[in-house]
Amino acid sequence: MDQSEIFAALQSQKIETPSWGYGNSGTRFKTFAAPGAARTIWEKVDDAAEIHRLTGIAPSIALHIPWDKVSDFGELASYGRDKGISIGAINPNLFQRDEYKLGSIASPDSATRETAIAHILECVAIMDQTGSRDLSLWFADGTNYAGQDDLRRRKRNFRTALTTIHDALPAGKRLLLEYKFFEPSFYYTDSFDWGCALSHCSAIGPKAQVLVDLGHHPQSTNIEAIVAFLLDEGKLGGFHFNARRYADDDLIVGSTNPYELFCIYHELVSAQSAEDRLVAETAANVAYMIDQSHNIEPKLEAMLQSVLNCQEAFARALLVDRNALTEAQRNGDVLGAHRILNSAFHTDVRPLLKTFREQQGLPVDPIAELKCSEYVETIVRTRGVADASGGYPTE
Amino acid sequence: MDQSEIFAALQSQKIETPSWGYGNSGTRFKTFAAPGAARTIWEKVDDAAEIHRLTGIAPSIALHIPWDKVSDFGELASYGRDKGISIGAINPNLFQRDEYKLGSIASPDSATRETAIAHILECVAIMDQTGSRDLSLWFADGTNYAGQDDLRRRKRNFRTALTTIHDALPAGKRLLLEYKFFEPSFYYTDSFDWGCALSHCSAIGPKAQVLVDLGHHPQSTNIEAIVAFLLDEGKLGGFHFNARRYADDDLIVGSTNPYELFCIYHELVSAQSAEDRLVAETAANVAYMIDQSHNIEPKLEAMLQSVLNCQEAFARALLVDRNALTEAQRNGDVLGAHRILNSAFHTDVRPLLKTFREQQGLPVDPIAELKCSEYVETIVRTRGVADASGGYPTE
Amino acid sequence: MDQSEIFAALQSQKIETPSWGYGNSGTRFKTFAAPGAARTIWEKVDDAAEIHRLTGIAPSIALHIPWDKVSDFGELASYGRDKGISIGAINPNLFQRDEYKLGSIASPDSATRETAIAHILECVAIMDQTGSRDLSLWFADGTNYAGQDDLRRRKRNFRTALTTIHDALPAGKRLLLEYKFFEPSFYYTDSFDWGCALSHCSAIGPKAQVLVDLGHHPQSTNIEAIVAFLLDEGKLGGFHFNARRYADDDLIVGSTNPYELFCIYHELVSAQSAEDRLVAETAANVAYMIDQSHNIEPKLEAMLQSVLNCQEAFARALLVDRNALTEAQRNGDVLGAHRILNSAFHTDVRPLLKTFREQQGLPVDPIAELKCSEYVETIVRTRGVADASGGYPTE
Amino acid sequence: MDQSEIFAALQSQKIETPSWGYGNSGTRFKTFAAPGAARTIWEKVDDAAEIHRLTGIAPSIALHIPWDKVSDFGELASYGRDKGISIGAINPNLFQRDEYKLGSIASPDSATRETAIAHILECVAIMDQTGSRDLSLWFADGTNYAGQDDLRRRKRNFRTALTTIHDALPAGKRLLLEYKFFEPSFYYTDSFDWGCALSHCSAIGPKAQVLVDLGHHPQSTNIEAIVAFLLDEGKLGGFHFNARRYADDDLIVGSTNPYELFCIYHELVSAQSAEDRLVAETAANVAYMIDQSHNIEPKLEAMLQSVLNCQEAFARALLVDRNALTEAQRNGDVLGAHRILNSAFHTDVRPLLKTFREQQGLPVDPIAELKCSEYVETIVRTRGVADASGGYPTE
Repeated sequence: MDQSEIFAALQSQKIETPSWGYGNSGTRFKTFAAPGAARTIWEKVDDAAEIHRLTGIAPSIALHIPWDKVSDFGELASYGRDKGISIGAINPNLFQRDEYKLGSIASPDSATRETAIAHILECVAIMDQTGSRDLSLWFADGTNYAGQDDLRRRKRNFRTALTTIHDALPAGKRLLLEYKFFEPSFYYTDSFDWGCALSHCSAIGPKAQVLVDLGHHPQSTNIEAIVAFLLDEGKLGGFHFNARRYADDDLIVGSTNPYELFCIYHELVSAQSAEDRLVAETAANVAYMIDQSHNIEPKLEAMLQSVLNCQEAFARALLVDRNALTEAQRNGDVLGAHRILNSAFHTDVRPLLKTFREQQGLPVDPIAELKCSEYVETIVRTRGVADASGGYPTE
Repeated sequence: MDQSEIFAALQSQKIETPSWGYGNSGTRFKTFAAPGAARTIWEKVDDAAEIHRLTGIAPSIALHIPWDKVSDFGELASYGRDKGISIGAINPNLFQRDEYKLGSIASPDSATRETAIAHILECVAIMDQTGSRDLSLWFADGTNYAGQDDLRRRKRNFRTALTTIHDALPAGKRLLLEYKFFEPSFYYTDSFDWGCALSHCSAIGPKAQVLVDLGHHPQSTNIEAIVAFLLDEGKLGGFHFNARRYADDDLIVGSTNPYELFCIYHELVSAQSAEDRLVAETAANVAYMIDQSHNIEPKLEAMLQSVLNCQEAFARALLVDRNALTEAQRNGDVLGAHRILNSAFHTDVRPLLKTFREQQGLPVDPIAELKCSEYVETIVRTRGVADASGGYPTE
Repeated sequence: MDQSEIFAALQSQKIETPSWGYGNSGTRFKTFAAPGAARTIWEKVDDAAEIHRLTGIAPSIALHIPWDKVSDFGELASYGRDKGISIGAINPNLFQRDEYKLGSIASPDSATRETAIAHILECVAIMDQTGSRDLSLWFADGTNYAGQDDLRRRKRNFRTALTTIHDALPAGKRLLLEYKFFEPSFYYTDSFDWGCALSHCSAIGPKAQVLVDLGHHPQSTNIEAIVAFLLDEGKLGGFHFNARRYADDDLIVGSTNPYELFCIYHELVSAQSAEDRLVAETAANVAYMIDQSHNIEPKLEAMLQSVLNCQEAFARALLVDRNALTEAQRNGDVLGAHRILNSAFHTDVRPLLKTFREQQGLPVDPIAELKCSEYVETIVRTRGVADASGGYPTE
Repeated sequence: MDQSEIFAALQSQKIETPSWGYGNSGTRFKTFAAPGAARTIWEKVDDAAEIHRLTGIAPSIALHIPWDKVSDFGELASYGRDKGISIGAINPNLFQRDEYKLGSIASPDSATRETAIAHILECVAIMDQTGSRDLSLWFADGTNYAGQDDLRRRKRNFRTALTTIHDALPAGKRLLLEYKFFEPSFYYTDSFDWGCALSHCSAIGPKAQVLVDLGHHPQSTNIEAIVAFLLDEGKLGGFHFNARRYADDDLIVGSTNPYELFCIYHELVSAQSAEDRLVAETAANVAYMIDQSHNIEPKLEAMLQSVLNCQEAFARALLVDRNALTEAQRNGDVLGAHRILNSAFHTDVRPLLKTFREQQGLPVDPIAELKCSEYVETIVRTRGVADASGGYPTE
């Protein structure tokens, strides 16, 4: 790739930020209130716009319903549009109602399952009003004790509900099914890994694809292998980006193992130019979304850092000499091929990105720009420090 | 051991329940409000007394300060005494104040470190009023990102503070130092494992011992090996009992792997009859404390089940034919020795425990007794369903 | 279930032992030579017959080709038949030839892929001669370094080869595809988890099913959840039984966590009586095979213990009160349901099994019978101590 | 640091290569024979000298006894000296004799324990002849099944033996005690983690220090935290460098997570300039040793890559702006401090190292130099392909 191709690729990159990343969040032990944390969805859109202003690659915001419920979603979409922000994925909340104690669409209670499906269909309706393409589904469903519930019965209820939802989606919309190894359930989760999610998505239909959250895997899972497999099956729908070392730590993406993030981007860049049309189209439509919990860091700085980490990882992946790599691989040159990949990783892409930003009319040093921005000063002053006694907001 | 020896041992067993186990608790996603959950420390003592009435082996309650702060701890101790409940370990809270965002006694901020030490010393004073023997220290201190803080400087601040606290403890009191592999910090924790805790305890003095929380280890850690090592060093102070499969799941002790709990009790029973006096004395003074988070189960039933699981594990460990085991071990009879241990594990101890309870005048089937007890009915009616929007209580 | 139903179920249980479990085996550090270890496939059949004589539930032996290659497989089958042993699964060896250094059917080298396919087809031919139903496929294929090879290209080569093999299988034969999280490759394995294996099996056809090796999962994986999912999809083909705590430890099945083995059997027993015909049929055809590495234990004692551990786990699972369990689950009685399951686990099934063995004319205490058997004495004397300098045998 | 200081530091770096890294090695499944792999200790010294010629920072070789036993160690030392290679750590073999099946110094059999101690004392004598400073002790001791042996009795035997060895060491020599989470034992290892090793080293005396093998930890362990802790206690003796993702994978150091290796070097560089004299001295005396198993890569290329990876990680760590870092840490600037560390990591150090090598008269591109070297061609031709049917060599 020459520089113009690289710049074209960098320009096409898009990272969606989540509304819930702009409000206070915490661990089960404590939510620390951040000065200037957004209190309403309107303020969250403002914050998303500021991140987009600084980076040029964060033009949309994901919503969480009912946290971000407004009386007129058309008005919200219009508000965002004026600020350069479109409404991205819609995320239903299926874990904060008392009736979800034993699950939502996999609950042993049929009334609860219907409540959950109805809420998701409400979100499908919102997608229409906001112009969202993706319905992003994470289920906290699961059990805590062996024997607590029947695993096959839960699976069947789960699939039945997914089928209903899939079939209710208008053409052009997608259902992205997330999976999670554990938490908040600690014996079993109903969508427990990518294989489980892929099986469901394959069964329910073409509008269903798998959503990969980087923090939802067993220890030492090779995530890029899952990414490559799903791309090849035409079933990778998107990412929830974050970083982890232990559990679902929800740290800033790329902060615990930058090499892993690079390897994931390497698979994505490879697939974008695949000869197989299904693979290339799948790669082209992947949704890149941040999903983190900034417990001790300044909210906007953390979000900005996350977007920039994705940009750096992508830039490195663009630098891989793919022809040389393929040749070394075909020759069985184990370490030669490994070094070709690493050579791109070890390249310092900061000068390249500086040039790119200059050319795009973007702030050359986004972090420095944020740090001295009037925006931060203003929100700290006007929003103050919200009460943060609990963790996630409640209905 | 003949039956009278086994019954004597069973009679000597003591499991301390935690005040915070009787109130509402949850994950970072949701706290489900339990009908009849205790709202005050007085109600928590009432609940502890009920568990003791049903089992006969839960005669004390651990306090968490400031959650359980009262104006007159002498009055609280007296209230408990009237109900057969003594005040057990005192647990300071070092994670819920805004200033603890970067740590408490390991914080880079000296004023914060002093605040933390002062709070712990306040707890030492409370120990005097309640007659508690043990100061139980868990520190949420740690960092989320590489480079965030200096690891050696944090260690030195940590040890300095511990020394101050140790030296302030009156004779006969103990400092139990907990460790935790991760959470709520996700890059580094200041007391990150048993080796770290042992090193600190050895350095600061004889009143310091290590507290083992079953859920605070890396995946697949052999916990009984740590228990055996600490016993042999005279440095095992106590347990926080719970169960986990993935992270610090805080499930009911013994529920995910009953064999592991049995193996731990086997080491404890072995040490109790050790020829080495230090080992035997250490084993005799181990504090057994429940520390769990009952998110979806009825509070009292969960606590009762936990105490009973400990009793069953202990009973099985008492049945090990130790002479035969030692002989098989000395002969290098790998599978023979393994089978001798397993023979005790596979024995159904329910008939034995039924006889024991009858002899002790205890309810023969504690779960059934609880389920039809007036006590539960009364607390559900009188306490109602508390608000549970947040997770842990706040100051 | 009444006792006659339980005995009927116990009588139907079948555990296949592996030929390679009767020879010397070891870790990468050392193979300890066991006195009397079998040196030829004929001796291995003799040993398998002894295990079957002692238990009554181990009537077949799995072969590994070329380790167990003979000039006339019909003669081998006949030899086994005379001793009550049939030939079970055929396992090709795809990791011991120098050309497999970079993989077999996923190798970047097409000649190597063809060699591997040819070897597997040779095994298909052997199946015909031995009367084996199952072709058991484990691939050591993978890579050690990021970039070493192209993951999607490897996947496509892998699937193409599997399709060829599948289509070459005569009617009534099955291809069982194993998966493994890691080892001997340490960056990527081509059949890396059950989801990967399920996707391949679904794509290549109805004769392909997934083989679950208990030791091939990430830490703390809920294996019974995978078992339940595969059963429900009609895609569970069989098991390789063993136990692990850390990696692919290959210890005696049930020895590290007997509760886990019980929970797996619970799913199998549940599925056997499922209303859904596909599920019930799938469960009825599951192949139960031991696959372990006895490094320090006596070979025959270890194999016998393994078979008995499976029998005990199955017996416990048969005791679960399924009607009560279902009712508790439907009522959302979390701990009640858990206790119903546990009540079966905590039942001492040794008296039941003693009665069963008596009724079947089997040795009442198989371990004691083995320990004093003439058989062991004879093989130690006649076979001697084989040279065991290496690990697995070579071609 | 200015460039001259950085170059001085780079010049002082020393990485010891292991004799066993030049011979054939493999997994338990297969040892692939590498063309030109060294067959004798003399050839291994030749290879080490070639690595040193190419890098300038690998001036010593570790020996494994009895694999590298010669009749005259003085002659071997002299042979090495002539080639610029000194004899480094001596590693006894305590896992390949049949009598070590149940352990060496922790075996239940006293004669075995004495054999093991005698072998280690033989190695101490060799240290005298070779001028080695360090005795490097790894024990494969452990058990496979709960109950197999008595954990506290094993611990006491272990410590008694270590004390004997420690006390036999001449002044100026060191005992480096390794630890390992698991393998080849899979229930328990006698030196199971750094806390265990530290406790032993503290108890037996000042000549004992802990050896950290990067691959011997539980999943996701923060190794740099252990390094920092041991440095601060004056008890870090050395490293066995390699990389892992899953178990003890023994891959090329830095290949799976280069950021982790960098963070470890960051702690070492920080400690080298610590004000505390014990810490600085400890850091100055750390032994850096490669310990890997190159299964599929060319031997010399793999070793060279390993040494270079250490050099790059060290170079990056030297670039950290420590004053700025300390200030950001003191200010509680979480992400600012993190970025300062990362800025060094993301710097491309290849130009710097090129200049350094030029200045030192070393090959500017060591990999390219090796690839076209006559040395490789010669050894492939003259040594041929050794038989590699087994894994590790035997006595």
